[in-house]
Amino acid sequence: MDELNINFDKYKNIRRTMGRELIDLNPIQRGGELPVESKKAIYEYWDGYSVCDYCGGRLDKVETPPICEYLHDVSKFLGMDFTRPTHGARESKFIVMHSVCNEGDFVVLDGNAHYTSFVALERAKLNSEIVEHDGYPTFRVNPEKYAEVIDNLEDKNKPIGLILLTHVDGNYGNLADAEKVGKIAKQKGYPFLLNCAYSVGRLPVNGKKLNADFLAISGHKSMASASPCGLVSIKGEYADKVFRTSKTHPVKEIEMLGCTSRGAPLISLMASFSHVAERVKNWDNEVKKTRFVVDELEKIGFNQLGIKPKQHDLIKFETPILDEIAQKDKRRGYFFYEELKKRGIGGIKRGTTKEIKMSVYGLSWEQVRYVVDNIKEIVEQGNNI
Amino acid sequence: MDELNINFDKYKNIRRTMGRELIDLNPIQRGGELPVESKKAIYEYWDGYSVCDYCGGRLDKVETPPICEYLHDVSKFLGMDFTRPTHGARESKFIVMHSVCNEGDFVVLDGNAHYTSFVALERAKLNSEIVEHDGYPTFRVNPEKYAEVIDNLEDKNKPIGLILLTHVDGNYGNLADAEKVGKIAKQKGYPFLLNCAYSVGRLPVNGKKLNADFLAISGHKSMASASPCGLVSIKGEYADKVFRTSKTHPVKEIEMLGCTSRGAPLISLMASFSHVAERVKNWDNEVKKTRFVVDELEKIGFNQLGIKPKQHDLIKFETPILDEIAQKDKRRGYFFYEELKKRGIGGIKRGTTKEIKMSVYGLSWEQVRYVVDNIKEIVEQGNNI
Repeated sequence: MDELNINFDKYKNIRRTMGRELIDLNPIQRGGELPVESKKAIYEYWDGYSVCDYCGGRLDKVETPPICEYLHDVSKFLGMDFTRPTHGARESKFIVMHSVCNEGDFVVLDGNAHYTSFVALERAKLNSEIVEHDGYPTFRVNPEKYAEVIDNLEDKNKPIGLILLTHVDGNYGNLADAEKVGKIAKQKGYPFLLNCAYSVGRLPVNGKKLNADFLAISGHKSMASASPCGLVSIKGEYADKVFRTSKTHPVKEIEMLGCTSRGAPLISLMASFSHVAERVKNWDNEVKKTRFVVDELEKIGFNQLGIKPKQHDLIKFETPILDEIAQKDKRRGYFFYEELKKRGIGGIKRGTTKEIKMSVYGLSWEQVRYVVDNIKEIVEQGNNI
Repeated sequence: MDELNINFDKYKNIRRTMGRELIDLNPIQRGGELPVESKKAIYEYWDGYSVCDYCGGRLDKVETPPICEYLHDVSKFLGMDFTRPTHGARESKFIVMHSVCNEGDFVVLDGNAHYTSFVALERAKLNSEIVEHDGYPTFRVNPEKYAEVIDNLEDKNKPIGLILLTHVDGNYGNLADAEKVGKIAKQKGYPFLLNCAYSVGRLPVNGKKLNADFLAISGHKSMASASPCGLVSIKGEYADKVFRTSKTHPVKEIEMLGCTSRGAPLISLMASFSHVAERVKNWDNEVKKTRFVVDELEKIGFNQLGIKPKQHDLIKFETPILDEIAQKDKRRGYFFYEELKKRGIGGIKRGTTKEIKMSVYGLSWEQVRYVVDNIKEIVEQGNNI
């Protein structure tokens, strides 16, 4: 192999300090930190195909480790009928779209939808019709507008295959009114997919109460699981479609390509279940911490975008004050990132000063106050340059 | 949550003994055991979305950890042009089929093809035409028959989208003549996908030398990586198709749904690269160990199926002698599994006695001899019942 001129050593010593050495404010990572029991479980299952020791032919039926039982229990937890492991929320969305829609169908989805919703429908050869949000500064999705968009498509005889709502979006952390959109979908007679990547595992979610037919769930984003891992949870009436099996290999589910998440990430998802079920009970406290951060940082010139007051931990701020300081500081836009890092805080995108995204989900009140005090100090110092 | 009546504790304490306490003979697991540097890397990256600390919008371009460099280096290692991470070989196959075929196209594939090849083509809405193997006892795939099957389909005006060969099959461990099948595919003008789930990472493979346009690779099966993880490696001329990007989100590759293996398994794949590059150099020794096992166990009434002598570590035996003993032993078919377990050996399917699959890949000669001696002893004891 030496003639290939590859420096293999570089891959043998891959290190990461985030999380262990820094308080991580990255919203996509705050819900994915593993509790200790989950780390222990990974230690047991990190070898390849480790979950297959006692497999009888299908991942979701494996009893040791208790995958089958877990899927049954997590369905109860989600208020749905059946659940399967997937590689993540995007893969769950593609599975649903590819199962319940016909090529060319329209997916009606909100203007705050994650890019993966669009890429998944494009991969499934579907069209999209966007329900626009209200724009600056709330970017709110109005459920009533779903009815308008559906009516318009029907007037034009466009086939609608699916209604999709982003329960909590990744830009503004707005919590959408899923129950109402679900009701409209039901009234109009279309299946309803709720993208719960930022909700299930952080806050209590009951799929049927929200009139959802399908939930797309992210393990690594919000269920304290290693990546990549997720769930697709569905109502019983769609099982024949979504879980349809192969003509040539009748035990195997087509959309799962037989088996999906066949290893350590699924084990961590299971091991973290108890931790996650406990933490969603403390959602009110998480919202309180979030609002505290907003209140304090708006005092120094930050401006929270999205619906007010916050109903979710993901915060987006306009930060003209950071932009001003960047003009004066010799480190330019990097000053904020570097000052935070000095103080043991990470997860804010390097070089950004106009807008920042952050979350204090799962941090202690002491940590939250530490973060707020240090951001204030950095801005104060910057003002004095 | 208590009203849900879920026993959460059961998921908090998931244990596994295989691998740590037993010599594992399961062929799907022997190539997936992690070297220590890979376990250390997982320790760094087990939190969800951990590889995204410095992401600029696409997984394959991430520089810290060195994913971008790894994909470049592993392409060299594979003798191909471009490589992307996937969730495994089945996902790689679906990506290729869904990119290069049109709905209804025929995939010409060998009779030893893994079930996931069939499920993937069914998911992609394609048809299959099988190149039959030679049947009992060699189950050999004759490359010339590919030409016949292709000619027959052409005569019937059936559209052919892809030629697929299983490099090493999971039933008999036959090493197929990829170079010849690739040559035929090239002559006939069809793209050629080689399923390397059981080859890349165990034995040296150079894709272009084998005339492959695409390699489907399994990290967890044969590249000492945590599951689920794999690679799709392609020739440059297919990059526009397989890596095509979204109309609405031009940075994002459609078939990857933006990003695929976004966490710990990919890190383990990278960390194991050096280990894997070293071990493929010792392939001759692995084949020697395999042939030793076959020679020794055929002396006590086992009969190796598939091509002789062995060219791959996966061994399938007919074991009429175990079946005879099972008739006499009060544990029936379970006696073999239980006797092996007593002796610290695992990975043989519980209750099977007519045929068994095993591999000693990566075991030391001392362990190989231990396995052989103990199987001989179990059979001798059984004969004496």
